[in-house]
Amino acid sequence: MQTFKNPYPKFEHLLPESAGWKQQITYWLQEDMPAFDYGGYVVGDNIQSATLYCKSDGVLAGVPFAKEVYKQCGLVVEWLIEEGTHLKPSEVTGGKIKVALISGAVKNILQAERLSLNIISRCSGIATRSYLTIKLARDSGYNGIIAGTRKTTPGLRLLEKYSMLVGGIDTHRYDLSSMIMLKDNHIWATGSITKAVESAKRVAGFSSKIEVEVQNEDEAIEAIEAGADIIMLDNFDYGELQTSAKRLKAQWSGKKQFMLECSGGLTLQNISHFLCDDIDIYSTSSVHQGCGIIDFSLKIDRQY
Amino acid sequence: MQTFKNPYPKFEHLLPESAGWKQQITYWLQEDMPAFDYGGYVVGDNIQSATLYCKSDGVLAGVPFAKEVYKQCGLVVEWLIEEGTHLKPSEVTGGKIKVALISGAVKNILQAERLSLNIISRCSGIATRSYLTIKLARDSGYNGIIAGTRKTTPGLRLLEKYSMLVGGIDTHRYDLSSMIMLKDNHIWATGSITKAVESAKRVAGFSSKIEVEVQNEDEAIEAIEAGADIIMLDNFDYGELQTSAKRLKAQWSGKKQFMLECSGGLTLQNISHFLCDDIDIYSTSSVHQGCGIIDFSLKIDRQY
Amino acid sequence: MQTFKNPYPKFEHLLPESAGWKQQITYWLQEDMPAFDYGGYVVGDNIQSATLYCKSDGVLAGVPFAKEVYKQCGLVVEWLIEEGTHLKPSEVTGGKIKVALISGAVKNILQAERLSLNIISRCSGIATRSYLTIKLARDSGYNGIIAGTRKTTPGLRLLEKYSMLVGGIDTHRYDLSSMIMLKDNHIWATGSITKAVESAKRVAGFSSKIEVEVQNEDEAIEAIEAGADIIMLDNFDYGELQTSAKRLKAQWSGKKQFMLECSGGLTLQNISHFLCDDIDIYSTSSVHQGCGIIDFSLKIDRQY
Amino acid sequence: MQTFKNPYPKFEHLLPESAGWKQQITYWLQEDMPAFDYGGYVVGDNIQSATLYCKSDGVLAGVPFAKEVYKQCGLVVEWLIEEGTHLKPSEVTGGKIKVALISGAVKNILQAERLSLNIISRCSGIATRSYLTIKLARDSGYNGIIAGTRKTTPGLRLLEKYSMLVGGIDTHRYDLSSMIMLKDNHIWATGSITKAVESAKRVAGFSSKIEVEVQNEDEAIEAIEAGADIIMLDNFDYGELQTSAKRLKAQWSGKKQFMLECSGGLTLQNISHFLCDDIDIYSTSSVHQGCGIIDFSLKIDRQY
Amino acid sequence: MQTFKNPYPKFEHLLPESAGWKQQITYWLQEDMPAFDYGGYVVGDNIQSATLYCKSDGVLAGVPFAKEVYKQCGLVVEWLIEEGTHLKPSEVTGGKIKVALISGAVKNILQAERLSLNIISRCSGIATRSYLTIKLARDSGYNGIIAGTRKTTPGLRLLEKYSMLVGGIDTHRYDLSSMIMLKDNHIWATGSITKAVESAKRVAGFSSKIEVEVQNEDEAIEAIEAGADIIMLDNFDYGELQTSAKRLKAQWSGKKQFMLECSGGLTLQNISHFLCDDIDIYSTSSVHQGCGIIDFSLKIDRQY
Amino acid sequence: MQTFKNPYPKFEHLLPESAGWKQQITYWLQEDMPAFDYGGYVVGDNIQSATLYCKSDGVLAGVPFAKEVYKQCGLVVEWLIEEGTHLKPSEVTGGKIKVALISGAVKNILQAERLSLNIISRCSGIATRSYLTIKLARDSGYNGIIAGTRKTTPGLRLLEKYSMLVGGIDTHRYDLSSMIMLKDNHIWATGSITKAVESAKRVAGFSSKIEVEVQNEDEAIEAIEAGADIIMLDNFDYGELQTSAKRLKAQWSGKKQFMLECSGGLTLQNISHFLCDDIDIYSTSSVHQGCGIIDFSLKIDRQY
Repeated sequence: MQTFKNPYPKFEHLLPESAGWKQQITYWLQEDMPAFDYGGYVVGDNIQSATLYCKSDGVLAGVPFAKEVYKQCGLVVEWLIEEGTHLKPSEVTGGKIKVALISGAVKNILQAERLSLNIISRCSGIATRSYLTIKLARDSGYNGIIAGTRKTTPGLRLLEKYSMLVGGIDTHRYDLSSMIMLKDNHIWATGSITKAVESAKRVAGFSSKIEVEVQNEDEAIEAIEAGADIIMLDNFDYGELQTSAKRLKAQWSGKKQFMLECSGGLTLQNISHFLCDDIDIYSTSSVHQGCGIIDFSLKIDRQY
Repeated sequence: MQTFKNPYPKFEHLLPESAGWKQQITYWLQEDMPAFDYGGYVVGDNIQSATLYCKSDGVLAGVPFAKEVYKQCGLVVEWLIEEGTHLKPSEVTGGKIKVALISGAVKNILQAERLSLNIISRCSGIATRSYLTIKLARDSGYNGIIAGTRKTTPGLRLLEKYSMLVGGIDTHRYDLSSMIMLKDNHIWATGSITKAVESAKRVAGFSSKIEVEVQNEDEAIEAIEAGADIIMLDNFDYGELQTSAKRLKAQWSGKKQFMLECSGGLTLQNISHFLCDDIDIYSTSSVHQGCGIIDFSLKIDRQY
Repeated sequence: MQTFKNPYPKFEHLLPESAGWKQQITYWLQEDMPAFDYGGYVVGDNIQSATLYCKSDGVLAGVPFAKEVYKQCGLVVEWLIEEGTHLKPSEVTGGKIKVALISGAVKNILQAERLSLNIISRCSGIATRSYLTIKLARDSGYNGIIAGTRKTTPGLRLLEKYSMLVGGIDTHRYDLSSMIMLKDNHIWATGSITKAVESAKRVAGFSSKIEVEVQNEDEAIEAIEAGADIIMLDNFDYGELQTSAKRLKAQWSGKKQFMLECSGGLTLQNISHFLCDDIDIYSTSSVHQGCGIIDFSLKIDRQY
Repeated sequence: MQTFKNPYPKFEHLLPESAGWKQQITYWLQEDMPAFDYGGYVVGDNIQSATLYCKSDGVLAGVPFAKEVYKQCGLVVEWLIEEGTHLKPSEVTGGKIKVALISGAVKNILQAERLSLNIISRCSGIATRSYLTIKLARDSGYNGIIAGTRKTTPGLRLLEKYSMLVGGIDTHRYDLSSMIMLKDNHIWATGSITKAVESAKRVAGFSSKIEVEVQNEDEAIEAIEAGADIIMLDNFDYGELQTSAKRLKAQWSGKKQFMLECSGGLTLQNISHFLCDDIDIYSTSSVHQGCGIIDFSLKIDRQY
Repeated sequence: MQTFKNPYPKFEHLLPESAGWKQQITYWLQEDMPAFDYGGYVVGDNIQSATLYCKSDGVLAGVPFAKEVYKQCGLVVEWLIEEGTHLKPSEVTGGKIKVALISGAVKNILQAERLSLNIISRCSGIATRSYLTIKLARDSGYNGIIAGTRKTTPGLRLLEKYSMLVGGIDTHRYDLSSMIMLKDNHIWATGSITKAVESAKRVAGFSSKIEVEVQNEDEAIEAIEAGADIIMLDNFDYGELQTSAKRLKAQWSGKKQFMLECSGGLTLQNISHFLCDDIDIYSTSSVHQGCGIIDFSLKIDRQY
Repeated sequence: MQTFKNPYPKFEHLLPESAGWKQQITYWLQEDMPAFDYGGYVVGDNIQSATLYCKSDGVLAGVPFAKEVYKQCGLVVEWLIEEGTHLKPSEVTGGKIKVALISGAVKNILQAERLSLNIISRCSGIATRSYLTIKLARDSGYNGIIAGTRKTTPGLRLLEKYSMLVGGIDTHRYDLSSMIMLKDNHIWATGSITKAVESAKRVAGFSSKIEVEVQNEDEAIEAIEAGADIIMLDNFDYGELQTSAKRLKAQWSGKKQFMLECSGGLTLQNISHFLCDDIDIYSTSSVHQGCGIIDFSLKIDRQY
């Protein structure tokens, strides 16, 4: 029997063929052109070509979203660089690197320009920060998981979670309807960790995991005993984190399976001080929230 | 320190306060009145009262969706019966049971009538069949999980998964973006179970579980070794199911954690023949697909 | 002068070329993939072929809706069986019949799989029950109309009314903005049948018909005198139905034109007991509400 | 038994309580304020009052749509004049008549101003022309039906059909999914009137009427024999119209029931030349297409 | 260096490639076919051709909107006449002029028929009235600006502003989020012109202009001194208008730049009495509000 | 005569009462809860209170958007701090400042938590960077305009332009349908600045300004002569910028009115090196693109 294979899985295959994210791009194009396209009238619909350039150091991300912008504007694009590539424009390259060649009606190129740049700059900013963080962790000898959070930009969760994957980190749970996470507010409102976990299990079903955020080792023990799949040690200082993690793992070895997550104020600058092998997951918003962009530009090609 | 508690968790708290499911109800009301409401013109907006009756034996479900229909139609409702109650109209009760009292402009009552009945009949149908199935399993001494499937009516997944919960069963994964499930088609397309699981792990992240559908015990072993969280034994006959499940559980006891699921053609009629303790989950579409409805009606109260 | 002809009218020509029902399909695809398509990442976009099989006895319906699902997922489909065909998979055919051949990116085939099956199973279920009911009526010598009702699944009215047509029965009025129907609740709220009909005529216009639901022969007479186009005899027992219908038809013969409809609790099991020639229309929800599905599956083709 | 009554049916009861037409008003408000409301910033949210004035002679229509505009803008309104009233501002009334008193945040009053005026001016324009046309017909001794057409403004069909009713005429069929109308293009494409009617009957069902447009008396006869409910005599000159109508009515008297409609180029100026008793319906777009508006204004009340 | 050029700017390049106006057309098609297309079933999908005819004197406008209707209905169109052409059907041309040739499935042609005609009739009506008004102004020797207003049909602003451009006049500000206009209501609510302008400048930014509506010359002076870019002299009589305009222009010559606009009750009939060179802009709703339509029809081509 | 006044204009009055931005918030809530709210089930609907804290130094912005989030979740909020306040949490204040008190069903508080924080953190980040930039400019003695750009986050333009206003800077043009801006790509595609401006004037109308981006002083002269309202000197170095600006202003003094804008790579770090009085506007994306966030948190109040 002949079997098939998918030798090169691509992140872009994570995006549905027919779906809401494409309508969101239509909405974003409208946001920038609610009425007339005066510039389009000025330039007309001659067929021209243009080039998308990367102008600063970073990991290219957001290609399928930019592709859809160009497609909705009736343009044809040839991509010269693959999603996930680390681009390093230098003086040698004239300070920029060609990323894609675009052609079509010049008015349509200019309609697509700003949105495609806004998308690709932000996605690449997140992929780059994600990449730098996981690289730092690996260079420090840590082999566990680095993950983002749910503190994404409203309306851009898909793009930002996607960019984390391109950058090489874990997306953490997608939304409130995914993995159940019981945080301080939930515990206070329910009365105890045990009650909260019990209640969650009644609706979660076998297909969902349950995570509990704890403030100290006692709470961690209560969560583990209640059957949580993941325990998040929230805002522990490093010594506490290391000791508690080791103790918890030792105590349940061979008895209960759970993962430990460390969260709270981690950044590219301080994360290496917190890394230790008994923590399975480090999560941080710093890879996607207020994390800077990578500079791209799109220029009509001029013939000489 | 005083703590809070939520002594009576209610399924209706699973529904977001501001969200798409309410817009869906607006859309359904429009489906039934795309242009003029001729009947509304005939009856006018006198304030009247009406009663929602249950007319056949079953578990009441769908109350929060019906509530929203009445709310969008500007009506005030008093519910006499709680969601999840098993209703048994009999000759003693005149063949019907009062479920809710509704009041407001008579034209609005008639606008809400058909949609609210269509919703509550279907939801209660699913809750009833779910309830009967889990009851049968418990009566047979089975203490594991009974779950539905993804074969829900297009556009009604939230209502139908919700009704399964009211009926007392597990919803199984919600959609393709939830728990990753690798079925026959995925395996064929990827080349092997091992490759498929490996690939899935690259994007799934720590917060998602992975399930693999297998056709025989060898595939089950491959899936367990690849690290699947759940193994679905698809269309096994009963003998095979019992033997394989026992053997698999024994082999990995204390080494690997996984759950076993049995699926394929299970119905209220035949499920008891398949129940055995080594299977953690039995899943079936028969509790929600083509499963019959419970009869409700809504009548304007007449004064004598 | 050469004229054109449309020798083979097709039900699928009833569906608008550009319209809401296609957006509804987009919404349903999103319902099943709100975020990432993990399975799509695993299988990739190799071009493969797949087959849609029918696995139980029934009338094929819902083809144009399934077509649109495949189209929105970028797939090419060849249909081997025409809409409306009565399929009878048997041991001779290996328990299944090939209905369509599908090809395209394997990830897209798997995105389309569940929704297309959910649609076609439900539509065929309704067409089948409709077909069986009209066949039974014809076999009993009844030549009048069998019709469905407005008790359709929320959001699926177009699919379900369409499936009734494929099955060979009348759709009855489409919604509250179509033919005006004055039921018990309307009559009670207005005071009398005469007043209700009078009021309805003020807005209905010449292009709409008016139907009145009546509880006894006196009410039927009032409705006919008020000028109703159709009189629905609601929940009459058989003797009453036959006698009243005959008497009403005789009384107005050559004086007033109207149709008589019988409704209330009719099913495939009991309808033959109610058939009589003086009734023009028998309407029943049993052909579409909780009526069971026809089993279909979609499998990637494997080469040996 | 006490019964209810609806002594004063109101056209506004024709509008669904929860539906698309309200979302359309939201969309129209957005059309006028896609981004910032600069004027709102200037005037602020002091509570003030304003008056809606009618400034030209006409029939007030569109009140429920204007009501919804004010409601969506958070305003409270007291209506001084009822929908359907014929307003005649004169020098005695200072050239204007107070129609409604509005109060709320001044910025919200100014947000609602233009849209409410645009709606009420257009609706009243249509109601006025409809009223004048039916009045002329009645004054000429014609007691049949005057109807509008489907040539309404895109997106405003509900408003315009509604305004026809307020003005006192028949709305004719609402859309292509209502009463089936077979026009010249349909007949040419099908081959013959008989074939077209036969085909239509296969899907129309008992609840829909069928109308056929004919070019001459022979075609009318074919349409009647095929079973059409209404025959539209298209663009007949007056003599032809009168003679044919009389002959057709005489020929089928007591045998077949049908209505005759006259259409094509009718206006307020020429319609009286076409009126005759054998025609049941005269339809004309002139009452709603390009028919002029009634002048309204909305002014903040100033205290002295 | 070779440069590009856009020698023939076209109004249709003002419309975004991917945007809301196309979704609006989808919505309008749905408005006319909310459920089944009965006529489509009757005629089927034979490929046929049809012709779009102009039947009355006017300026052709709305072509890109009609194009989109045909495209969404899957039709191919060849346009014989360019947008903006003044069409004069006469007896010589048989009372009509061929505007476009359309081909495709006959059911789709009939789906597109009414909406495309409704659009093109209205747009051409506005372009024609705009053209006649600017022509009259130029013939009277006036070289300034003629502009429309914001009194457009709800939902059709883009079409109507576009048609003004085709007809040769200025669109005036697009909406409340464009150029800030402080009218009588704003002034009353703020206390003074000076305060209102001051406040507006705080948020308007350098990219927006500010216009002030004034009732007399003193107010005009206040507005100019406050820094308004445009002063609208509202409902001035002709003598007052001429004198004030001359005096204002003289007073600030070389000191302040501003434009003067005349508005209030201008029509094609009376505008020539108001024209004078010191007024830069005359604005009037009469070119688009209740302004009549141009007659078009679409007929299936019949072969002989 | 008594007049009204708006003594304290508030930025929040810039937001329409009924409009798309509220629907966008509904969409964002859905993004975070596409299906079940498991946490909501756990905590229930007891009425509780919570506090919104600011935890880092910055200017509070985004209050009306957060208000709408709380409103859509059925919560009552009391704001303790006004939009635009510069918050400086310190050790004295316990590292945080109370911004608002929220109360309502605890499940609804937790539904609103993340979105309200995501919004207010981003808006305040932009307002803060805007404030720091304008403050730096004023401290450097510059009295002209500092403006943002169109490089905003897709879907968040309204929030980000709004936050610029709260921070004290100019929003620059809103979108491609606002002020016409002819950039390098437009000029290349049109052939010359003169042609491009000419063409733009044909559609822009009197209510829009035209800006031209130039690469050198010669182009600036061409743009001024062509009648541009604003000239953007793109990427000039400081010496060139100062000299050219002075020369251009001198040359046209008293002859032509125009503004000069400097753009290209300006940041909070380097902008002071570019400031000079002949430049009217400095525009920079650095105040909103990748600019960091202000830290806020929301905690359920616990009683002791």
